[in-house]
Amino acid sequence: MTQSKSNGNRNGNGNRHGATDEKVEISTDPISPNSKKVYVKGTLHPDIKVPFREISLSPSTTITGNGNGNHIENDETSILVYDTSGPYTDPEATIDIREGLKPIRLSWITGREDVEYYDARTILPKDDGYREGENPNTERFQKTREQVLRAKPGRNVTQMHYAKKGIITPEMEFIAIRENQKRKQWIQDEEREQRLKGNSFGANLQEEITPEFVRDEVARGRAIIPANINHPESEPMIIGRNFLVKINSNIGNSAVSSSIEEEVEKMVWSARCGADNVMDLSTGKNIHTTREWILRNAPVPIGTVPIYQALEKVNGKIEDLTWEIYRDTLIEQCEQGVDYFTIHAGVLLRYVPMTAKRVTGIVSRGGAIMAKWCLTYHKENFLYTHFEDICEIMKAYDVSFSLGDGLRPGSTADANDEAQFAELETLGELTKIAWEHEVQTMIEGPGHVPMHMIKENMERQLELCGEAPFYTLGPLTTDIAPGYDHITSGIGAAMIGWYGTAMLCYVTPKEHLGLPNRDDVKEGVITYKIAAHAADLAKGHPGARVRDDALSKARFEFRWEDQFNLSLDPEKALQFHDETLPKDSAKVAHFCSMCGPHFCSMKITQDVRDYAEQKGLEEKQALDAGMKEMSESFKEKGSEIYTKPA
Amino acid sequence: MTQSKSNGNRNGNGNRHGATDEKVEISTDPISPNSKKVYVKGTLHPDIKVPFREISLSPSTTITGNGNGNHIENDETSILVYDTSGPYTDPEATIDIREGLKPIRLSWITGREDVEYYDARTILPKDDGYREGENPNTERFQKTREQVLRAKPGRNVTQMHYAKKGIITPEMEFIAIRENQKRKQWIQDEEREQRLKGNSFGANLQEEITPEFVRDEVARGRAIIPANINHPESEPMIIGRNFLVKINSNIGNSAVSSSIEEEVEKMVWSARCGADNVMDLSTGKNIHTTREWILRNAPVPIGTVPIYQALEKVNGKIEDLTWEIYRDTLIEQCEQGVDYFTIHAGVLLRYVPMTAKRVTGIVSRGGAIMAKWCLTYHKENFLYTHFEDICEIMKAYDVSFSLGDGLRPGSTADANDEAQFAELETLGELTKIAWEHEVQTMIEGPGHVPMHMIKENMERQLELCGEAPFYTLGPLTTDIAPGYDHITSGIGAAMIGWYGTAMLCYVTPKEHLGLPNRDDVKEGVITYKIAAHAADLAKGHPGARVRDDALSKARFEFRWEDQFNLSLDPEKALQFHDETLPKDSAKVAHFCSMCGPHFCSMKITQDVRDYAEQKGLEEKQALDAGMKEMSESFKEKGSEIYTKPA
Repeated sequence: MTQSKSNGNRNGNGNRHGATDEKVEISTDPISPNSKKVYVKGTLHPDIKVPFREISLSPSTTITGNGNGNHIENDETSILVYDTSGPYTDPEATIDIREGLKPIRLSWITGREDVEYYDARTILPKDDGYREGENPNTERFQKTREQVLRAKPGRNVTQMHYAKKGIITPEMEFIAIRENQKRKQWIQDEEREQRLKGNSFGANLQEEITPEFVRDEVARGRAIIPANINHPESEPMIIGRNFLVKINSNIGNSAVSSSIEEEVEKMVWSARCGADNVMDLSTGKNIHTTREWILRNAPVPIGTVPIYQALEKVNGKIEDLTWEIYRDTLIEQCEQGVDYFTIHAGVLLRYVPMTAKRVTGIVSRGGAIMAKWCLTYHKENFLYTHFEDICEIMKAYDVSFSLGDGLRPGSTADANDEAQFAELETLGELTKIAWEHEVQTMIEGPGHVPMHMIKENMERQLELCGEAPFYTLGPLTTDIAPGYDHITSGIGAAMIGWYGTAMLCYVTPKEHLGLPNRDDVKEGVITYKIAAHAADLAKGHPGARVRDDALSKARFEFRWEDQFNLSLDPEKALQFHDETLPKDSAKVAHFCSMCGPHFCSMKITQDVRDYAEQKGLEEKQALDAGMKEMSESFKEKGSEIYTKPA
Repeated sequence: MTQSKSNGNRNGNGNRHGATDEKVEISTDPISPNSKKVYVKGTLHPDIKVPFREISLSPSTTITGNGNGNHIENDETSILVYDTSGPYTDPEATIDIREGLKPIRLSWITGREDVEYYDARTILPKDDGYREGENPNTERFQKTREQVLRAKPGRNVTQMHYAKKGIITPEMEFIAIRENQKRKQWIQDEEREQRLKGNSFGANLQEEITPEFVRDEVARGRAIIPANINHPESEPMIIGRNFLVKINSNIGNSAVSSSIEEEVEKMVWSARCGADNVMDLSTGKNIHTTREWILRNAPVPIGTVPIYQALEKVNGKIEDLTWEIYRDTLIEQCEQGVDYFTIHAGVLLRYVPMTAKRVTGIVSRGGAIMAKWCLTYHKENFLYTHFEDICEIMKAYDVSFSLGDGLRPGSTADANDEAQFAELETLGELTKIAWEHEVQTMIEGPGHVPMHMIKENMERQLELCGEAPFYTLGPLTTDIAPGYDHITSGIGAAMIGWYGTAMLCYVTPKEHLGLPNRDDVKEGVITYKIAAHAADLAKGHPGARVRDDALSKARFEFRWEDQFNLSLDPEKALQFHDETLPKDSAKVAHFCSMCGPHFCSMKITQDVRDYAEQKGLEEKQALDAGMKEMSESFKEKGSEIYTKPA
């Protein structure tokens, strides 16, 4: 595992417990030398500090206006971008993964006076996959709390509940500030803005996100704020199609490889690269302990698939799974602070045979487990029959549903089939029940889907699930490129994000082949940041263009450093540039390696612009008129324009 | 520069002239150990040998049918895939880049009796960017021909001319066989095929490609066959929206770096990875000689932008460019065998001021050169005024037009603007003139375009340019990811390919930052193969699904080797798998590293399938009926379904 530069002034080293030889460190240096962490304070709730990354820019060098009377803004010295990296990139913060992050939301949670502390469920060896008396070679997170929070009897502590009551929580104001991102136009040009207007497919994108708008969307079920009251370390974020498209990364050890610190490091690294939240999909040993380390250090919401751990508790024997074991696992994870659960409650007994004729059957692990359980006992899925019990548990901690698509297609051949859409219909039914309990809910989606079949997924989901947020895995648009499935799926993800998917679950280059390492995680996250941002642009999300325009302008003006710093991966951009032109002087050069110093189209364009500037608008009009005249004359002469010269 | 394994029995080493320390070798080993080169013979023209790659498969192990009466084919032992790699992957071929490839088309060309040999234009030092008497340290391709071919006086030797005359050339039959690809359905399942039916946006995809269909499409101008009579080494291929989507790679030295052999190697490497043709965009020194080496060794068509070389001949002084110098360059390149020319004849004087208010002005090198020339003399673009002269030259060699989009947007902010569409209208006008001369023509397209604005590009192009093939660069769907522009553009490329673009010009990760090396070329080509294939699937191209289904089936059955071999990059797939599970036994294991041996959804699916198989169709029906009954009963009981257990 490679290590990021740690030339920062802090170095929160993770200690090691794993079996690998590689040193695992938590990266805490700033993401690029010209960036700094800034916070914006709340108004309704003055203790709110919303993080942004401010990217400093050099002064614009060449452009002072244009020949068309449109003024080009030149006074920008920095731009703010959405920042998911948490305190790890704050030079003021003290990072110690043995202590965990500061519980920034705790006073908001306890301040509502609807929660109580109680003695947490005792942690058992089986929670980590060990037998009674077995001595795991694993370091427990030392600060594990003896007492945890839950709703007082009869109270509902979900953000949806507050929203429906008309309450604007600090979480909602935090999000409003975070999403707002100073929706300033980089370049004031109405004609251009009109032309670039997106197609939001019925999404309702606001010029300005207000706390009230956030509240209303959450109340309506169109957006969720994953925010377990036992995960006060997390910075609030929202998932809904009227907000910026979000992305998710998956981490998790498996029976085959990985160590605890590697997983913590991958979570921190995911957030640094831009993941809005992270799923811990661990299987095998040390599930509980790994999760504790992750949660206590996570500035982003964490999701899990509780059936994985439940299955470990019965040593992988699906026939031994019971509602009671599952319920116990849910409570264990609610107490730890997991923010959303993937629950495959839509895999009904009668849907299972629909998958028999598929090319790739059932590929969701959770879906396969529940299908086998249903078949074994010829009984209905206990997640379905106990769905309201689950709602009762989740609303006491504000854990959100991520209703799992256990029957999603595992190949393009199986896309949009009977099994997939039957399950989606059931997920729609369950959404309504969850909403009756005021439990926040999103819906998982595929998978492997060729491009022409993607839109139908979004349309059906919106219709069947009452506009609950959609959360899709890709989709992969072809099956023939293992090793490049971040790309096959990035194509589908961008498209479905545009159509209205609220969160995109990333895919790494290792998909189908192995477990992602640090580089793979980064490649997956960046690819999905691209997909999400391309979707925001296409939807016409206010403010989304600012960064594109700033980077394009820097590119045009040969402000190389700005170009690198504004990019999603400044380090790689710089490294690629230096491979061809390593000299420092090349970074201020008014040319690039593609064309060389004497042959640059950007340089020529400046000549064009200077010319247009010099001649002014009248010249352009004269030119137009003159050419029109000429054009008329050409038409009169017929084919003579093309007459060969003597 | 890394070197592919050369454990093959041949090793055609390229000699070196460049200044780099890296050893350049031409890769000649087969692309994967389970692949072999096979040829299919022609019927109308029995001397035709159309190359394919045959991928051998292990026997299907687990599936013998399914519970729904649909028979799953199990007798496939191999599949054929389209092969662009040329003789380099043929163990029977002798490769020597100093000799060049065999001129497989020569007898077809001379057999038509409409061409004549003549003394080629004398190669001058300035053709390589040297002054008279300067001694270039560059090895000439020793087999440079003294005599070259051109049409006999008054004859037209374009494939379009033959097509309009009703003649089916050997090139056309070659293409029909090549495109046909045994359009066999891998899995016979009418219901599935119906569901997966694509959306071709008005393209006319044939169940079987006949030589007559190829002829008709070329006659209509809807497809082109780039096939200069002086490039007989090339294997015929077609570009048109009723055929498989093609991709292009760009290579080319520049004033800053690169050597001749590196460029030859990149061309061979591009073709091995799957590039359908290659553009040589060299600037600086040795343009002529580099191109000669490339052409004599190229099994794929080669395109160029002649204005680049013309500008070198006047030492980069745009104001010294003249029609005469350009004309001389065209003839020089026609004689060498360039298959298509990018010509920026649509950059008209009156369009230039339209770019002044852009964020990134003019970013096409050719476009910028012509714009500056127009402004300098306040005269119309000489490529436009001499367009019919150019047609006269090109039809004597069958060089195709690639009408350049000199005013394409260089940022998403500039997409679909006045300048871009004004030029496109002119390109439409020029297409009709080219067609009057029976010169094959395609149209270049953008560029940087957000997703929601992509479709308009395709629609306008089809309308304005009479359905001439569209050839787009990406488009990039956001500007914020330098270092990942193969991905930002791969998204746009897949979409515009689906809408009808016939050829996608690749973008490498180095775009905007530096010159691509061998790894970048591969990454770009594979990304674009993905985009092209995803587009073919979405269009519903007959036969496109075969490889996806074969790979998905291999994946489901844990035939790891088959999964690797069927992928676009077997080497990378294998390497990624081995990082997590390096043992050979893991390659026959019925599990993968993501879930481990005891927890595999694919394995569980097999249980489901066995169950469904065992119980048969009746069971499914009974189950459906039973569950329906239960469902009715549930409805009657109302909310009782969700009653909590005692």
